[in-house]
Amino acid sequence: MTPSQRLDATFAALADPTRRAILARLAQGDASVAELAEPFAMSQPAISKHLKVLENAGLISTAQDAQRRPRRIEGVRLAEATAWLEEYRQFWDESFQRLDALLEEMKREERQRKRPSRS
Amino acid sequence: MTPSQRLDATFAALADPTRRAILARLAQGDASVAELAEPFAMSQPAISKHLKVLENAGLISTAQDAQRRPRRIEGVRLAEATAWLEEYRQFWDESFQRLDALLEEMKREERQRKRPSRS
Repeated sequence: MTPSQRLDATFAALADPTRRAILARLAQGDASVAELAEPFAMSQPAISKHLKVLENAGLISTAQDAQRRPRRIEGVRLAEATAWLEEYRQFWDESFQRLDALLEEMKREERQRKRPSRS
Repeated sequence: MTPSQRLDATFAALADPTRRAILARLAQGDASVAELAEPFAMSQPAISKHLKVLENAGLISTAQDAQRRPRRIEGVRLAEATAWLEEYRQFWDESFQRLDALLEEMKREERQRKRPSRS
């Protein structure tokens, strides 16, 4: 893939709330498909489909653990997306300073996408 | 739109090389549809379709100049996308340091998407 095709795949993969929530979960630590499916109201096949999109975009990889096959985040594609946005810093920098509240709202929304934990 | 829906729209809009090239052109300064269509090997209707996607995502706006109706970049959505990526800095930070070469390659590709200028 060319850099431009990689950006296409990265941004397309990120344009979905479930896939972003999966990345948020993986940011806490590697997880198997079963572990990823658990907090979401989704079947394992549905989760697997999203994982395939993320893996094809290079945003996650599968570790060589024959039993669990845990998924992990790969940072390079996120770095490329960040590098693209960095070129537009003059446009977003001012707004960025005011985004603390927004970030909190985003995190709250992400948490609400998950089922309550069974603690 | 909720913050999550805005991110969906932003990332989907950015997942296209022509739309990214349009933003790269607008980063140089506001431009009318005709001015935007000129450097690309595309019809004005094709460009207009891409502009609609960018405008629906809030990435650009149309200035109130009845004649030219120039488009301009709006930074807030780019700031939100950057804020989302910022949450994953631990994963991309190291790669980011090595992206200078990649950025150059991306810019070269973008330039090649345009027809030679008629200077």
